[in-house]
Amino acid sequence: MHEFELIKNYFQKLSKKSPSALNLNDDVFFDKKNKLAVSVDTYTEGNHFIDFKRPDLVIKKIIRSSISDLICKGIKPKYYFISGSGNKKSFSKLNLSKISKSLNQEQNKYKIFLSGGDTVFSNKLSFTITSIGFADNIIYRNKAKLYDDVYVSGNIGDSYLGLLVLKNKIKLNSRLKKYFTNQYFMPNIQLKLIDQIKKFANTSIDISDGLIADLVKMINNQKLSYKIFLKDIPISSNLKKILALKKLSKINYISNGDDYQVLFTASKNKMRIIRKIATNCRVKLTKIGTIQSHVKKSSIVDVENRQITLKNKGYFHKF
Amino acid sequence: MHEFELIKNYFQKLSKKSPSALNLNDDVFFDKKNKLAVSVDTYTEGNHFIDFKRPDLVIKKIIRSSISDLICKGIKPKYYFISGSGNKKSFSKLNLSKISKSLNQEQNKYKIFLSGGDTVFSNKLSFTITSIGFADNIIYRNKAKLYDDVYVSGNIGDSYLGLLVLKNKIKLNSRLKKYFTNQYFMPNIQLKLIDQIKKFANTSIDISDGLIADLVKMINNQKLSYKIFLKDIPISSNLKKILALKKLSKINYISNGDDYQVLFTASKNKMRIIRKIATNCRVKLTKIGTIQSHVKKSSIVDVENRQITLKNKGYFHKF
Repeated sequence: MHEFELIKNYFQKLSKKSPSALNLNDDVFFDKKNKLAVSVDTYTEGNHFIDFKRPDLVIKKIIRSSISDLICKGIKPKYYFISGSGNKKSFSKLNLSKISKSLNQEQNKYKIFLSGGDTVFSNKLSFTITSIGFADNIIYRNKAKLYDDVYVSGNIGDSYLGLLVLKNKIKLNSRLKKYFTNQYFMPNIQLKLIDQIKKFANTSIDISDGLIADLVKMINNQKLSYKIFLKDIPISSNLKKILALKKLSKINYISNGDDYQVLFTASKNKMRIIRKIATNCRVKLTKIGTIQSHVKKSSIVDVENRQITLKNKGYFHKF
Repeated sequence: MHEFELIKNYFQKLSKKSPSALNLNDDVFFDKKNKLAVSVDTYTEGNHFIDFKRPDLVIKKIIRSSISDLICKGIKPKYYFISGSGNKKSFSKLNLSKISKSLNQEQNKYKIFLSGGDTVFSNKLSFTITSIGFADNIIYRNKAKLYDDVYVSGNIGDSYLGLLVLKNKIKLNSRLKKYFTNQYFMPNIQLKLIDQIKKFANTSIDISDGLIADLVKMINNQKLSYKIFLKDIPISSNLKKILALKKLSKINYISNGDDYQVLFTASKNKMRIIRKIATNCRVKLTKIGTIQSHVKKSSIVDVENRQITLKNKGYFHKF
């Protein structure tokens, strides 16, 4: 069963009575009256992270993944809670020191505060992070408008290459190895966009499961489809180099998730302000496609406007 | 390492910068400015619940355990988030239906709303519940005053007997078996106290780890000790019967945890109002001891004022 189905069949009705739960059809809960936004995510070893050989980096990744949910909607994260299940080995004194140090670094970088949590004994390592922020308003899902432009922040695909490196599925020199694995563990999330994104975005999501998977989620309740231009999807010069060198197809490296960049749509007339904000805030914002009527099929196209088949759209949680 | 030590050594400093985290020295986070209270707890199979043969009951237990943290401090829970890690068997359609039904019943009973969460695949079953409520003020830990009376709500020990029944360590007839296991799975938490408790309590905690273990936690940063009268600790008539019948000592059945009753201290001059509120709200509130100076050792005493040794003070989380 897909996670969507599971939520729809068993849990959506439970949130119906709540004025604020967005039908659970979002990564973020928002209570407008109390200006409260909450994101809850669980990360397990072997699933969301390969192993715990680098606790310092794993912790950074999951903290960024958690607050990214808020940031992509224009909410400043303020508090976080971390609940860890693990055994003596995972929570050895050395590992705890590393975890603590990483959390401290992330706190200083993102101005967030550890506010509570729990630690329980388990042979299966997992963490649940609850992030909380306050905002007068947020950007919702499923609010794209017909003919909107589709934008993405930063670069896509570096994190996936980092994962392949960590899994020994691709060999690189030590400089590039470090670059890509760092992108995997410490995605460059767009804190600078928080105060800006509400000025132009109609709808938004952060890319955790894959560019296309998350694009689908962003508009899944709307009678709309997308058209994405492969050539416009921004990738780093390092990734460009690797693709050329190893004769790999770009299409296979742009929707595998863990990017934690912001995907959003905006009306065409916002193009100027988006460019201006991108320059002023030094954030890369790239137009990669458009939103169209659902009578047209969603597609990714090449430079000759031919449809490209994407084998792996990204990660869909399954049971 | 005890959970206390772990928090103190590795995480307390991270919350120092936050104005609201109570140094992580509490089950509840409270942000006075935003009137926000948050409790995060993780429950694992084999640890917080024996198994998942009765998902309907396990779910009720963990929801009550979570909101109990807020209720004992005078905070009305409003939203809850549930993050479940489990495999296909744990999250079968039948189990999901049962989970959903139980959540719905708890929502109606306690007027709380499912507001989000996560589901991830794992062979180790666990749930993290985040409960959120709003309040102008809360009752803190470590605010007992010298010569305060110590009170407890409801009855103590039924839940532990229920656990012994479930573990086949004690045999009872089917009526009593049902009574005690129901007390274990569906503790009778004191929602009625929410609006009342701030009128009289100086400090409070909910009993999850054991009457004495939680009493120690409630005043652990204070130069105070306690004196508890064994005979005054309230137990149900059913438990009284069992103790007599099986010749068991009361002392071994009153600090084993999972009671989810409210433990609090109050100034002596609050006795009248406490009695009045207990009668009006139909809540059993029993005075079980007093708070004394730390120059006297904490003790539990019998009717002849002789100190009784308690072998098992309750549950201390260890790594």
